[in-house]
Amino acid sequence: MLLSALLTSVGINLGLCFLFFTLYSILRKQPGNIFVYAPRLIDKQKSEQQTDDLFNLERLLPSASWVRNAWQLTEEELLSISGLDALVFIRIFIFSLKVFAFGGIIGICVLLPVNYLGSQLSIDDFYDLPNKSLDSFSISNVNSGSKWLWIHFCAAYIFTGVVCYLLYSEYSYISSKRISCFYSSKPQPHQFTILVRGIPKLSGRSFSEVVETFFTENHPSTYLSNSVIHQTSKIQGLINDTEKLYRRLARIKSENRPQPKIRREGFLGLFGRKVNLFDHYEKKLEDLEDNVRMEQHSLSGEEVPAAFVSFKSRFGAAVALHIQQGVNPTEWVTERAPEPQDVHWPFFSASFIRRWIYMLVAIAAFIAVTIVFFIPVVIAQGLANLEQLETWFPFLKGILSLTVVSQLITGYLPSLILKLFLLLMPPVMILLSSMQGYISHSQIEKSACIKMLFFTIWNIFFATVLSGSALYQVNVFLEPKKIPSVLAEAVPSQASFFISYVVTSGWTSLSSELFRLIPLVCSYIRRLCCARRDDDEFEVPELQYYTEIPSILFFGLLGVTYFFLAPLILPFLLIYFCLGYIIFRNQLLNVYAPKYETSGKYWPIVHNSTIFSLILMHVIAIGLFGIKDLPLASSLTIPLPVLTLIFNEYCRKRFRPIFNGYPSECLVKRDKEDQNEPNMAEFYDKLVTAYRDPALAPVQLGRNVDSHSAPLLHEQV
Amino acid sequence: MLLSALLTSVGINLGLCFLFFTLYSILRKQPGNIFVYAPRLIDKQKSEQQTDDLFNLERLLPSASWVRNAWQLTEEELLSISGLDALVFIRIFIFSLKVFAFGGIIGICVLLPVNYLGSQLSIDDFYDLPNKSLDSFSISNVNSGSKWLWIHFCAAYIFTGVVCYLLYSEYSYISSKRISCFYSSKPQPHQFTILVRGIPKLSGRSFSEVVETFFTENHPSTYLSNSVIHQTSKIQGLINDTEKLYRRLARIKSENRPQPKIRREGFLGLFGRKVNLFDHYEKKLEDLEDNVRMEQHSLSGEEVPAAFVSFKSRFGAAVALHIQQGVNPTEWVTERAPEPQDVHWPFFSASFIRRWIYMLVAIAAFIAVTIVFFIPVVIAQGLANLEQLETWFPFLKGILSLTVVSQLITGYLPSLILKLFLLLMPPVMILLSSMQGYISHSQIEKSACIKMLFFTIWNIFFATVLSGSALYQVNVFLEPKKIPSVLAEAVPSQASFFISYVVTSGWTSLSSELFRLIPLVCSYIRRLCCARRDDDEFEVPELQYYTEIPSILFFGLLGVTYFFLAPLILPFLLIYFCLGYIIFRNQLLNVYAPKYETSGKYWPIVHNSTIFSLILMHVIAIGLFGIKDLPLASSLTIPLPVLTLIFNEYCRKRFRPIFNGYPSECLVKRDKEDQNEPNMAEFYDKLVTAYRDPALAPVQLGRNVDSHSAPLLHEQV
Repeated sequence: MLLSALLTSVGINLGLCFLFFTLYSILRKQPGNIFVYAPRLIDKQKSEQQTDDLFNLERLLPSASWVRNAWQLTEEELLSISGLDALVFIRIFIFSLKVFAFGGIIGICVLLPVNYLGSQLSIDDFYDLPNKSLDSFSISNVNSGSKWLWIHFCAAYIFTGVVCYLLYSEYSYISSKRISCFYSSKPQPHQFTILVRGIPKLSGRSFSEVVETFFTENHPSTYLSNSVIHQTSKIQGLINDTEKLYRRLARIKSENRPQPKIRREGFLGLFGRKVNLFDHYEKKLEDLEDNVRMEQHSLSGEEVPAAFVSFKSRFGAAVALHIQQGVNPTEWVTERAPEPQDVHWPFFSASFIRRWIYMLVAIAAFIAVTIVFFIPVVIAQGLANLEQLETWFPFLKGILSLTVVSQLITGYLPSLILKLFLLLMPPVMILLSSMQGYISHSQIEKSACIKMLFFTIWNIFFATVLSGSALYQVNVFLEPKKIPSVLAEAVPSQASFFISYVVTSGWTSLSSELFRLIPLVCSYIRRLCCARRDDDEFEVPELQYYTEIPSILFFGLLGVTYFFLAPLILPFLLIYFCLGYIIFRNQLLNVYAPKYETSGKYWPIVHNSTIFSLILMHVIAIGLFGIKDLPLASSLTIPLPVLTLIFNEYCRKRFRPIFNGYPSECLVKRDKEDQNEPNMAEFYDKLVTAYRDPALAPVQLGRNVDSHSAPLLHEQV
Repeated sequence: MLLSALLTSVGINLGLCFLFFTLYSILRKQPGNIFVYAPRLIDKQKSEQQTDDLFNLERLLPSASWVRNAWQLTEEELLSISGLDALVFIRIFIFSLKVFAFGGIIGICVLLPVNYLGSQLSIDDFYDLPNKSLDSFSISNVNSGSKWLWIHFCAAYIFTGVVCYLLYSEYSYISSKRISCFYSSKPQPHQFTILVRGIPKLSGRSFSEVVETFFTENHPSTYLSNSVIHQTSKIQGLINDTEKLYRRLARIKSENRPQPKIRREGFLGLFGRKVNLFDHYEKKLEDLEDNVRMEQHSLSGEEVPAAFVSFKSRFGAAVALHIQQGVNPTEWVTERAPEPQDVHWPFFSASFIRRWIYMLVAIAAFIAVTIVFFIPVVIAQGLANLEQLETWFPFLKGILSLTVVSQLITGYLPSLILKLFLLLMPPVMILLSSMQGYISHSQIEKSACIKMLFFTIWNIFFATVLSGSALYQVNVFLEPKKIPSVLAEAVPSQASFFISYVVTSGWTSLSSELFRLIPLVCSYIRRLCCARRDDDEFEVPELQYYTEIPSILFFGLLGVTYFFLAPLILPFLLIYFCLGYIIFRNQLLNVYAPKYETSGKYWPIVHNSTIFSLILMHVIAIGLFGIKDLPLASSLTIPLPVLTLIFNEYCRKRFRPIFNGYPSECLVKRDKEDQNEPNMAEFYDKLVTAYRDPALAPVQLGRNVDSHSAPLLHEQV
């Protein structure tokens, strides 16, 4: 790739970004788009909305006020509106900006000139910049055995040191935030509760009795209550039907027609006796509600050997959580309880061994999906070529013979298919993770995030770099001795691809995140088809960390590995992270609202991913110095990954436990503060019912459309 | 090796064994050898000893009564006299006997005939058994591509299944024993105590106060007391001197000479003023005691940031142990307290990070020692050849020129040097393990046991099998794809070496264990030189699990890997395990007494080692079927190691937690039982001082020679 081509691409993409930004700054001011661009502010603004409907000129002028708003948001505000997870998410950008600002200075001021002064590749005109290949700016251009390579060697050491220092201070900062958030939090049900699985079956006694006996025996001073989990997927289905029907009824009611709607009783409402639609639905609803009540009553016997056990203090819950309870470690397995609204109810029935097998199967499936991902993609791309399309859809022949169309198809169809398959992946990962038997949505998403990260690194980085069949890639990793030299050959040669990947894929994904094209289109279609439905089914979206974090970390990986290979990538990455910082702050302020909280548990993933990137860079450096006839530098680089791993191990010891639970010092302190709290008795009352399965709550559609009463507790307390 | 040669070797070694046994059965009856052969019965027999001194003929007749005694020992008796560790040790033999009895039946009745009927190696006379090579009985003799190999394939599957079943039932048996031992144990200080390290330094307050405040704050209902650890290596040295002097004084006193011993004051007692020796020592002793008291007083300020913290209940101690205490995980690090007599005092001063670095260094040193072990051995062997000896010791020239002597030297010197280097290893491993910062002797020994096991497997199995330089061996493991075929080539060809290794090294080590040659010789020398010293310095030896267990497990590994390669090894292994079973039961009954207890924590090592042996066998099988042109069998063997690893993982989940701690169910039950115990108040009083450093105990040599008052507590309670 030539420098001029890169600059053209940069220009086009910058233009596109500005176009998106302008459009956004106009569209967000249109009151109709408030559901798309500011759903989390809806409650606040509902009153103003009506007055805003008036047309004024300012609404059509682009403005940068959103940038100012996003910039001015302080960390405390962010923490209060979106929780610690959002803060951690923004800290990823801040951390990356620090890393690549430092890396960029060294890379552009020191490494780039050194690379450019080499003569391994180019013997053509030194000053003919536009026609220079991008490779002239990469380490490939430095002559073999050149003493200049020691500069790269030093840069690798210094960069690693700085990144490790930043990693340490960031980990330390986020752990202190986590503790201070805990101190400032109100009493919440999940702090007082654990989940117990593998309750042993005693003949003639219900699980609830067994749990009661066991915990009053072993934790007499702290045990409060338990709620055994029931198999409720059938009831849940019935309740969903009921709710749907109720909503339809409510809509009919709200339409307030003078003459009642009438339809026939039979198939599809076409045959049979004519009935009043309202009466018909009301009767059906009553039937369904009766059904639900009957099922709820009869099902209370079908208990699952798992229960949420609540304690009178946080410390009591932690004690029961951390100490093995039963003699058999596969019974009385304790686990931290998620927030009530975070519970993933369907998976409680599986036994210890079954869950474990599910987990193994899920991991095996994940590995299989990751390794053979390219096979269906290649097949689909093969099927979607020009001739095939002409055979399948002969009527398209005329259009396909146009040069523009055929170029578009051959040029964009394969990458479109790849994009579509890639878009399929996050849901697939969520599916695999939920098979693993996690009990909360947040755990599932965290696990999916790790899976997506592996998947991205494997299928975008290694697949591009090694550019062979899946089996060839696997083979490389079965011969560990060859890895450095293979990578050192392959990685630098893909530098220009990844630079343009940052510019095209990175920048575009950010501006489309801001513009929210798909929700925008959906919202227009909905408004065209069925006006006024928005209010009913409207839900504030949540930021999908498991799709965003892996892609951001992947750009970080590119930056770290290419830092000394092709420093030209760094300015583009810096722009990416700056844009991301502003855009995501804006989105967190206006669009997304958190449903549940992991309290910063995503940070260890970021830390580990960065360590992996560093090690990958070191391995490439070892191979590269070997290839460039500098065996001494190659050997002297070996301590670098070892030191990095030791640093990582130290961080794991120093910070990781803070992310797994809270220390007794904090727990006891909070418990003591609670003793002076006047409304703790009320809180305990609510705690007893906090973890009731929503499917077993009494049906009260008449008063409250949403029968999930448990999730509301969180805000009430 | 020919069959006849093997039989000769077996005959010689059997003869040697019987000779040792006969000698043992006679020597053990001699009253003078009671310190060698029955030290643990000494207290009991001291009264009888005098009458026994009379000569009678029976004392000179060999008898097998010891075998009967050892055989009749029940498990309960063993448990009561030697604790759970001894029981686990004996269970290794029982487990191995079960495994190899089953393996032996299949191997000898099925595999051996199949191997012998093959014709890959031997085309000579079928019936000329004595001159058959041992390889005719191994899998090497089966023709390539032969259908008979499927029998080996089935045998591998069946054998793995049976071993896994036995592993499971044994793990389950030992965990239940561990729990029942806990239930039946008296209250012991280490059950109520934890060790806390990394106590933060607060200005103006001693560590003891900091600990006191922290635990009364966070564990108000269960905290009992703390004893901060001091740096006492200097005092310990002084005390040792004092003790030595006291003993000498006591001996002089007991000699009761009419005229007092007199010697000069000066250098070596040769010059200076004549003094009464008794008075001289007494004065010196008083000085030393004053010195110790002064040091003890002045040192109480030099605290180390570590303390033993005792609680009022076992559950309270477990709570503090399992929950992270401080916000910073590197402070307030808790650890299970060892038994008071098990504490390894010297290593408490090291900080968190320093201990961690020590550990890394120790592991690196261990790997280095293991890999380069053969280099000094080979050098020493090279130096100790005939010419070298002649150059160094010219006066030996005459003797060395004799054929017998030169043959002896060239034949035995190299293997003697190897043996000596191998004997050096257990102390080296103990040294490395104690560098790792363990706080108890038992932990150090357990860690040394694991190290010795690795060392043995690497330096005896892999070094013999791969028989190349150390670097070549390491190289093989850097190319994982080649491992199966390399091993499959190399392992079967060493079958005859390992068969004779079992017969010579295995059987001999057992009979020398029984005969206790070195202690016997030492005891004779001591009796010749200085009569009556035995009683003073006599200590009952303890069984050194860290040298015995690795060698037994190594024979197990040989059995498992050679089970289907060369089943001829199995009968000899069976004899080894039978002998070991009887001999070690006898030794545990008469010779060894446990000083401290790990409560069965050696079993997981046995389990893991067996799993490793199985996997090694599977890897060899995969390679072998490949070499023997049976690729289908080779591929079908791949699930076997995977299934074995899954089984191992299941066992780890099912049993491992039981060996790490006791569940709250047991703890609470025992605590409740204690509440009815009348003398708990007394126990608590003793608990407060149980973990006082022996060096800081008041010097009371006048009344009690051994100033280690803490260790006595265990028996007193």
